[in-house]
This record gives sequence, structure tokens and C-alpha cells, in this order.
Amino acid sequence: MFNDFKLVDNRPVYIQLKDYLKKMIMKGHLLEHQKLPSTRELSKLLLISRNTVLTAYADLEQEGLIYAIKGKGNFVGKVKTAKTPSIELNWKEKVNEVTLLADELDLMKHGVRWKKGMISFNSIAPDEKLFDVENFKRAFLTRMSIEGDIVLNYGYAKGYKPLIDYLLHYMEMKGVDISNKDILITNGFTEGLDILLSSLAKKSGRIICENPTHHAALKLFRLYGLDIYGIEMKDDGIDICEVEKILSEMDFDFAYLIPSYHNPTGIVTSSEKRTEIMKLFSKYQIPIVEDGFNEELRYSGSHLAPLLTFAGSGNNVIYISSFSKILFPGLRVGWILADKELIHCLESVKRARTIHTSTLDQAVLYQYLHDGYFEKYLKKAKSVYKKKYELAFHACNQYIPFQRMTGDGGLHLFIELAKGMNSRTLLEKCYEKGVVFSPGDVFYTDGRGSNTFRLGFSRLKEADILKGIKIIGDTLKNENGS
Amino acid sequence: MFNDFKLVDNRPVYIQLKDYLKKMIMKGHLLEHQKLPSTRELSKLLLISRNTVLTAYADLEQEGLIYAIKGKGNFVGKVKTAKTPSIELNWKEKVNEVTLLADELDLMKHGVRWKKGMISFNSIAPDEKLFDVENFKRAFLTRMSIEGDIVLNYGYAKGYKPLIDYLLHYMEMKGVDISNKDILITNGFTEGLDILLSSLAKKSGRIICENPTHHAALKLFRLYGLDIYGIEMKDDGIDICEVEKILSEMDFDFAYLIPSYHNPTGIVTSSEKRTEIMKLFSKYQIPIVEDGFNEELRYSGSHLAPLLTFAGSGNNVIYISSFSKILFPGLRVGWILADKELIHCLESVKRARTIHTSTLDQAVLYQYLHDGYFEKYLKKAKSVYKKKYELAFHACNQYIPFQRMTGDGGLHLFIELAKGMNSRTLLEKCYEKGVVFSPGDVFYTDGRGSNTFRLGFSRLKEADILKGIKIIGDTLKNENGS
Repeated sequence: MFNDFKLVDNRPVYIQLKDYLKKMIMKGHLLEHQKLPSTRELSKLLLISRNTVLTAYADLEQEGLIYAIKGKGNFVGKVKTAKTPSIELNWKEKVNEVTLLADELDLMKHGVRWKKGMISFNSIAPDEKLFDVENFKRAFLTRMSIEGDIVLNYGYAKGYKPLIDYLLHYMEMKGVDISNKDILITNGFTEGLDILLSSLAKKSGRIICENPTHHAALKLFRLYGLDIYGIEMKDDGIDICEVEKILSEMDFDFAYLIPSYHNPTGIVTSSEKRTEIMKLFSKYQIPIVEDGFNEELRYSGSHLAPLLTFAGSGNNVIYISSFSKILFPGLRVGWILADKELIHCLESVKRARTIHTSTLDQAVLYQYLHDGYFEKYLKKAKSVYKKKYELAFHACNQYIPFQRMTGDGGLHLFIELAKGMNSRTLLEKCYEKGVVFSPGDVFYTDGRGSNTFRLGFSRLKEADILKGIKIIGDTLKNENGS
Repeated sequence: MFNDFKLVDNRPVYIQLKDYLKKMIMKGHLLEHQKLPSTRELSKLLLISRNTVLTAYADLEQEGLIYAIKGKGNFVGKVKTAKTPSIELNWKEKVNEVTLLADELDLMKHGVRWKKGMISFNSIAPDEKLFDVENFKRAFLTRMSIEGDIVLNYGYAKGYKPLIDYLLHYMEMKGVDISNKDILITNGFTEGLDILLSSLAKKSGRIICENPTHHAALKLFRLYGLDIYGIEMKDDGIDICEVEKILSEMDFDFAYLIPSYHNPTGIVTSSEKRTEIMKLFSKYQIPIVEDGFNEELRYSGSHLAPLLTFAGSGNNVIYISSFSKILFPGLRVGWILADKELIHCLESVKRARTIHTSTLDQAVLYQYLHDGYFEKYLKKAKSVYKKKYELAFHACNQYIPFQRMTGDGGLHLFIELAKGMNSRTLLEKCYEKGVVFSPGDVFYTDGRGSNTFRLGFSRLKEADILKGIKIIGDTLKNENGS
């Protein structure tokens, strides 16, 4: 007994001893009323100080796990829990359909598994090697010294006030009229969209969006049982004639659009098309949910305002965004910028579901932004990603026999192969050669896109971008030649 | 022009200048093709270095907001956004019924407003003055130095592995059989419950719970449209005869119970009753959602295991908890501990809705726990709260003519006045004297409890606890005497 007690580093020894004894008691290796070794004996046996044993015993007594009898020593208390008959429910039968659908649509569970050493074009997450950890620490320490106790206690459902003010100003700099608008801070973009859907969607309501579109959004639309109408993407944005036609035919709960940097095609909606979109949806009084995805990662071209700017003082555009594709996605902070009255309603939904977003995340992000580290970091990130982008762009042109390639900036490119080609078959072959990417069909609203795929290059080394694209190209050419 | 440029502290000047110019351009105070002052002129005018102006101009050019003509200077670019006709939607009509209900049930919007200087018994949040900010900083810096870049990038939906392992061990120390169980980390307890409801609840399904019960849980049950069956609380826990009767009559999706430290009554369910509860719900194959609320804040008595421990290797208990009432609620970290297969399903729901919980929050919390700071902090917190508890307990006994008072530890007491008394009327009168508390009816499933209220004392000074309770008592006595 006691000879399997092993110490780990950097954890107080008295806690380790306490845990160890607790486990022995819980597992029934030390029985009720059994006498424990004296503190002197145990300290000698385990080669730890007697004080450590004393503290551990005192804690165990405080927790009601052992009891002391003066002059006699310490004894194990009553902890035995009457085990009741053990029941085996079949949880797959207990959960509802929405949960089973979430399980089925979960790409992380059903996608091709990346293995160490492979070249993966799956991710469009930022490259953590770029992270500015030192300035992040600095921002943390600054904020904690200003109001550490406030940061660590409950905050407000709407969000951390300094961050809200900062973001309002930030969006005003993009030309947004913020006079009758407000911001709700969410656990990243995804919670923002989820809250909106839970508020705006009516069961079997209709939603209009670009086709293809962001697959995580598409998944949520499906989980909410929405009827999804996808409209084709032209090179300057959504096909406006198709939009006009469908709006004249039926009503929609709302539209979901990604004009700034479209996921997955990487198309940036032109200024002219933005005007047309706004006119059309305003005419039919359909609200627009604008996904501000990667607005910050355009590498060229003139200023482009979000749809929300075009809306002026109108309240029909709801803007959702986050910095997760640029800054620190490990911090889950996104925001909804919309009509004041709507935000006031959504605030209650947020409170009911998650109380509020981590104040720590919000406060440190605020300080990081305020101190100007973001601007500095963005410059560095843009120059690195721009190089990768150009490299990937040229390599695709050189090696891949595509029918169409889109992607004007950002962290990914979208490839359309000739009709009849299948990107999943291609993926299988590339997988054998150590290269993976995202088959495009998951982005489509209507099962199309089997000849498309997305290449995310943000986290790859330049040499691997070249090598990977060449392998994909070679595989395609061999397939055609064979 | 430029004379309203004002600098704030601790933000790089070039960013402030850039923002200022951007705003001028966006608002149309600087027009397209208008020439900007030379960098020399502007530096002189604003009393800032020329380099600062150069950097700001370079950034604005990069963003496409200004353009340079060699030898001629800098000019405002094309940014004017064609404002489209501005639309005013009535959002109150656009949002669905659930959202309107969330708005209606939002206590923060409709409760009695606390004003500065008042004695508020509303809160059961921890006292931030107790927070151990220095050790929290230490834990942050330790974790960041170990894997700062990982902490800041995307994590896993299930949660941060070291934290999951820590919590599994932590729960094993409470006697839980973890062999076929797993943990999902959530944005606090509330998201955990929300995810469970979205997975287990069937529209107009039935749920059984204690009456009164946690009002945030009750709110969620209502938002999910559940049929709620509340069972009365005896002094040792739920009325088991009532439970037996109702279970024999009808089926339930699941039960929601708070055995450890019941909110709002503060009743700790006895070990005998726990056994009976487990036997009964197992017999009828009804899953139990166990809220581990404030298990850590009992000040006396012998060891009490959670229901999950009683379940042994069975899988019919789902345990949800967080440290938010003890440690740092500003960090939104909770967890669901349940059957492996169920957690595997819930993981997909979590991913679909919020991707994952803040890795920063999880990683720092993990380090704080691992380094033993929690144990140390808990001792201090317990001793402070115990004193407050005893003070409040005795003061209530002395001053308040209650019919029943419950609360065995924790951060609050629950008072039941004589039948016919109304705690909202009492609240109105106390409000005038600068004292507020939570009327108990919000905790009841069936509109009862108008003669009850909850007193949270965690954040009050000892003198204010005494003073506040005396005011409530005096007000009650005057009312009866008048």
C-alpha cells in the first residue's frame, strides 16, 4: 500500500497526496473506519514533509472523508455510496432528429482524416506562427491591471462595453451609419448566426443565399429545417437576374450573403452589384444577413464598403463578423451589428442561452485592438498571406487544368474542374500521395459542385503549397491520360 | 479643418490620425480628389512627427482610401457609397415567438433595478474582491509560455484536452465511475443545459423538476416549449412520494435536479433521498440531468456524492456543472459529463452552434486548477462565505418573521413568509429604503411562491447584510402591525 504514489511536476504535493488518498477511499481500497498511517509514518514512507501530510489530512477531514480521534489518529469516514441498479439507456434513440442530423452533417466526423506529415489544404484558419503572442500577453497584463476583478466576474449579455464601443467606431470607419444601431457580442461568428436563426427563422421558412456558400452556415440552415434557395455566383457576385426572378415569385425570411470575401469561391462582390443587391432586397423588404467574412484580407483594389454602409440609416441589413480568420480564433469573439430594437431582442436570447461571452476574451481583445497591435499584426499577416496567395494562384494556373478558378485575396482559392470530373475521386487519389483538400460539394445548397474543391493555404509552408498543388495537378492529368 | 483632432492616451498616434482622416473621408468632409495637406504641413499643424503622418497616409493608400500622385501629393480616393433607399423594417414583427418570449422572460429587463448605494441581495455571483488575480495572471503566463500559439488558434469542439482530463479526474475523486463517460466543455453551465435541451427535448415533451427551481433553467424549459412538472421540495430534497405517483402516471423526456445545493432553496438532498431518487428514475428509465450547482460550497456535514456516483457504471445521469459560482464567472467554462455515446452526439451540436469554447478560458482555467491555486482559493472563499452565511442566517432568525427558512451553506438563503404575504409588495417597500432581493415567484414552475424570496449575500459587506436584513424584517413587522 502507498507504493504506487507518484509525484508529477508543478502541482502542490499536498494536493497530490490528498487526491491519491481520496481515490483510495473512493475505490474502496481504504475502508470505512480503517486507521490511516500517522503523519510521521506517511511522511517517512513517501519521502515528503510531515507538514504536507498534515495539510492533506486536514483537507480530507474538512471534506468529510476522514475523521480524527484525539490521541488515536485518523480514520476513514463513511463515503460508501449505495450503488443503485445500473441502467443502460440507448442514447441514440433518446436524442432528437436535429441532433442526429448535426451528427450526420459534422464534417469533422465524416471528412477525410488528415494525418501527420500530409499537406492539408483543408484549413482556412490563420497560421499560428504569425501570432503576436508577446503583445497579446502585454494586452492581457494591461487589462488585468486596470480591472482584473471585473474581467473575471460576470459581465453583460450584450457584451463588454469598451469592446462594443471600439467595434462601433471600427464599423463607422467603414462608412456604416451607426446612429440607430447596436452591437451584440457573441461566441464567434457561428453563435451570432445561430442566435439570428433561432430568432428569425420560422419552421420551414425560406432563406435565399449564394450557391455555393459557407458550409457551417449551410449546416445551421439545415438544422433549423429551413428551405434553402441557392443562387449561382457570377464573377462579380450573386446572379442578380436570378435573385430578381425568385424574389418576385415568393417570400423569404431573410437572405444570407457574403459579399466581402465569399466563402468558398473567394469572389468579392463588386460595388455596382452591391448597389443592385440593396435595391432589390429593399424593394421586396427582405432582410439581409451580411457575413463580413475576411473583409480585412483583401490584398488589392479600391475601398469597398459593406452592404450595411449602402443601407445608410435603413435597418434591413444585419452584419455579423469576427476577427477569427485573422486574429485569434481560440478567443471566441464575434459580433452582430444591427438595428437597436432587434439587438435588444437578441440580447435576451443570448442571455437565455449562454449568459454572455467570455469577459476575459473580450477584454483582452479590446486592449489588443486599442493598443494598435492589430494594425501592426494585420500588416505582417497580409504580407505573408499575400505571398502565399500569389504563389498558390500561379501554381494552380500552371499545374491544374481547371475550368474556372476564383479567389481574389483571402486565405483560399476555389477550383472548378470540367463537368463530369469528380473532386472526391481526385481527393482519394491525392490522399494516397499525402495531399488533402475540401471537396466543394459540401458548400452547395443543392448537391451540385462535385467537380469543385477549395484550397486553403494559410497554414502551409510555401514549398508545400507548390508541392501540393503540383501533386493535385499531376494526379488530374494522369487521370485524364489514363 | 483638422482643429478637432484630439489624441487619447495609449493608442498609437498614427492609428488615431488614420482613423480621424478616415472618418472625415467617410463623412464626406473630405471630398473625392481633394488634395490632402502635405505630410510636412500636417505634422506641423497637428504637432506630431512627420513619420507618423507618413505612416498614416501609407496605410490609407493601402486601404484604397487615398491615392498619391508623384510630385503632386496625396488625394482622396473614391469611397462614396451609393446610398440605396433606406428601409425601415419592424423587427418586433419579424422575430419569432420564442424570441419575444425570451424578451418577456428576461429578468434583467423587467426586474427591479438596482441603483448605486443600495443593498442588493439579488446576486449570487462570487465576490470579486476575493479573486486571486495575481495567481490567475501567473497561470495565464505559464500556459502562454507553454503553448501560446496553440491556445490562440482554433481548438476542438469537445474541449481543451488537458482540462477535460483534469475534470474527469476531479469527478472521479467524487466517486464517479468514468469508464464509459466523457466530457463536453461548454460556454458555462447555461450553454450546457441549452445544448442538452436542444438534443433531448421534443416539442411539448414533458420534464420533471424540483419546485421551485433555478430560474435560468426554467426560462430555457419554457423557451423550448416543454411541459414542466414541478415537484415540491421537502427539507431533505424533492418529495419522493409525489415523484413516484407522477412517474407511474406518465412518461417524461428527462428530469432536472439540483441535489447538491438547491437553487433557490439551498436545500442539500440527503444521501438516503439520493438513493431513492436513483432507484425510482432508474425503474422508470427516465434520464436525470443533474445540476452540480455549488457542490463545492458546503460548509459542514459529511461527504455527499453526486447522483452520478450513485449511478455507478449506468449511463442514465447527465451531470452539468461549472465553477462560475466560486471561481471566475467572467470565464465562460462549464462541462457536461455523461455517457460517451451521448457526448459524441452533443459534440456535433456544440460544433454546429459555437465551434468550441474559448481555448484561452479553458487553458488558463486548467493551469490555475493544475497549479493548486483553486484549492487555496477555495479555502479562503469558504471561510469568508461561511462567515457571511452564518451572519445572514442568524440575522434572518432574529429579524424576519418567516414561516420557513432554508439554505444549508452556499451563497444564499430562501425565505418563505406566511401564506397570503406578498414578497413583491415587500420588495417595493424595501426598495424605497434602499434594499432589494429576488422575489421567489420567478423560481416556481406554476406561478406559486408569491410569499417567498431569495437572499443572496455573497457580494455584500457583513455590515450591509445585517443592515439589509433588519430593514426587510422591520418593513415586514410594520406591515403586519399597520
